[in-house]
This record gives sequence, structure tokens and C-alpha cells, in this order.
Amino acid sequence: MENLLFDNQDTLFMQKALDQARTALQKGEVPVGAVITYHGQIIARAHNLTETLNDPTAHAEMQAITAACDTVGGKYLDQCTLYVTLEPCLMCAGAIAWAQLGRLVYAASDPKKGFTLFQGTILHPKTSTTTGVLAEVSGRLLKEFFAGKR
Amino acid sequence: MENLLFDNQDTLFMQKALDQARTALQKGEVPVGAVITYHGQIIARAHNLTETLNDPTAHAEMQAITAACDTVGGKYLDQCTLYVTLEPCLMCAGAIAWAQLGRLVYAASDPKKGFTLFQGTILHPKTSTTTGVLAEVSGRLLKEFFAGKR
Repeated sequence: MENLLFDNQDTLFMQKALDQARTALQKGEVPVGAVITYHGQIIARAHNLTETLNDPTAHAEMQAITAACDTVGGKYLDQCTLYVTLEPCLMCAGAIAWAQLGRLVYAASDPKKGFTLFQGTILHPKTSTTTGVLAEVSGRLLKEFFAGKR
Repeated sequence: MENLLFDNQDTLFMQKALDQARTALQKGEVPVGAVITYHGQIIARAHNLTETLNDPTAHAEMQAITAACDTVGGKYLDQCTLYVTLEPCLMCAGAIAWAQLGRLVYAASDPKKGFTLFQGTILHPKTSTTTGVLAEVSGRLLKEFFAGKR
């Protein structure tokens, strides 16, 4: 179920994801950051590293999922929340589905590559989704990056 | 463009991908294997390791893409062919799209999780697709695995 309701804790964790996005920006990467929480504790932090690693799969979400699974010692994240500064792409949505993520919270929407373009059966039915947390800050960061590229 | 035409070289490389799938099977993994070629040379081999690594992103294709990008030193695989024993899922199709893969060849179809369920705009328009190479052998391997699980 998608909703726009979020609380202070969501804002706090999205701030942490934005810190990751800023780190990506400093490295010349498309500024996307992610954190994964488990019962209110951060268990994974990651930022986009596709350029640095020459790896198209090195999105923030993918790395965060791998790290979080390592921490929980299993391949399901049904007790976890993923905070990410940009709407996940299809690849990341696929990974989120495989992980049976408990809750997805993202900031800015991605009207070009976002998974909601294919809305319906992509995420696992157990995963709840919240959007819009600090969307403006995240969007500004992305705009800044692409403006610098032109 | 999707087609069912393939040659001896495709069969040979799919055999190599099937070798990887068999290795996965020996480890108790869902038997899926992949190889990536660059101008007729194998530059990456991988098999599904989701159980071993406790990582839902550790599909054969994902690992092969990461390894191949490392070898070519870039994040695009437009000169490469990915041979995989099972139709890629949405996550892997997303990764294949980001990598702008030149050609995708897969054996068995996956009517439940295969990306062609969402046919159309998922793969990069430059990527050509061939299906059915050694599909029966690959399908048998998968059936064997799931039969053993019941």
C-alpha cells in the first residue's frame, strides 16, 4: 500500500540517506543514497557507486540490500525499512521484491525510470511503500548534479 | 528483437552456462548459470549464490554483469553477449538494461518471474534477444532441483 504519511523518524532516517547521497555527489556519482533499518536501528548505509566501480548494478539500494542481508544473516528483509532518496528503478524494485522488504520509503519520484511506471505486481505484496519524505531536498541534489554535467 | 535462431557457438556458450548451473545445483542453489562473452571469448562466468551468500541479489546474471564490467573496465556491455540458462527476472533485466547489453541469449523461459511478462520497455532498445538455446536441458535441471526440495 502506498501512502504519503510519514513521521519524524522517517524524516530522520531519510536525512541519513541524504547524507549518503551527498557523499555520492562528492564522488561525481548520481547522488542517490540509502539506509536500511531494522526495528529502528540503521543496519546498512550505501550510496550509488556505478561510476567509481564501473558497475551498472552498484545502485545504493542494491548495495544496501546486500549489506543488510549480511547483517541479518538471511536473504529476507521483511522486518526492515529501506529509505532511499530516489524512487527505485526496476532492477532495484526487483531486488526489493526478492528480499520481501517490509517497508519502502523514498523521497523524490523518478518519472523516467521509477518502478511505479510498471505499478502493480513488482514489489512483494507484503511491502508497504511511503513516498515524498524530504523529496524536495533529494530532488534539488539531483538537479544540482545534472546541472553540473551540462 | 527476439528470435529463436541460434548457432553452434550459442549452443557451446550455453553449455558453459549450464556447467555453471550444475555447480549451483551441487551447492543446493536454484540451478541457474551464466556466462558473458566479448567478441567470442568468455569474460565472465557465474552461478546463482543467493543461499550461500544469503543475498537475494546474487543471481547468476548480476554477478556475471559485475564481473564483465570489471573486465571491460566500463559499465556498458554493448559489445557483449550474456548467456543464461533461465529467463532473467525483472531485477536482472533491469541490470541488463543499465549495462546496455548487446545481446541476451537464454535457455528456459520463466513463465512466473520472467521479465517478458512485462515485455516492451524493460531492456535497452539496442539489446537483441535469443531464446530456447538448450532450453530442455536447463528446464530439466531446474525441475530436478525443485523435485528434490519437495
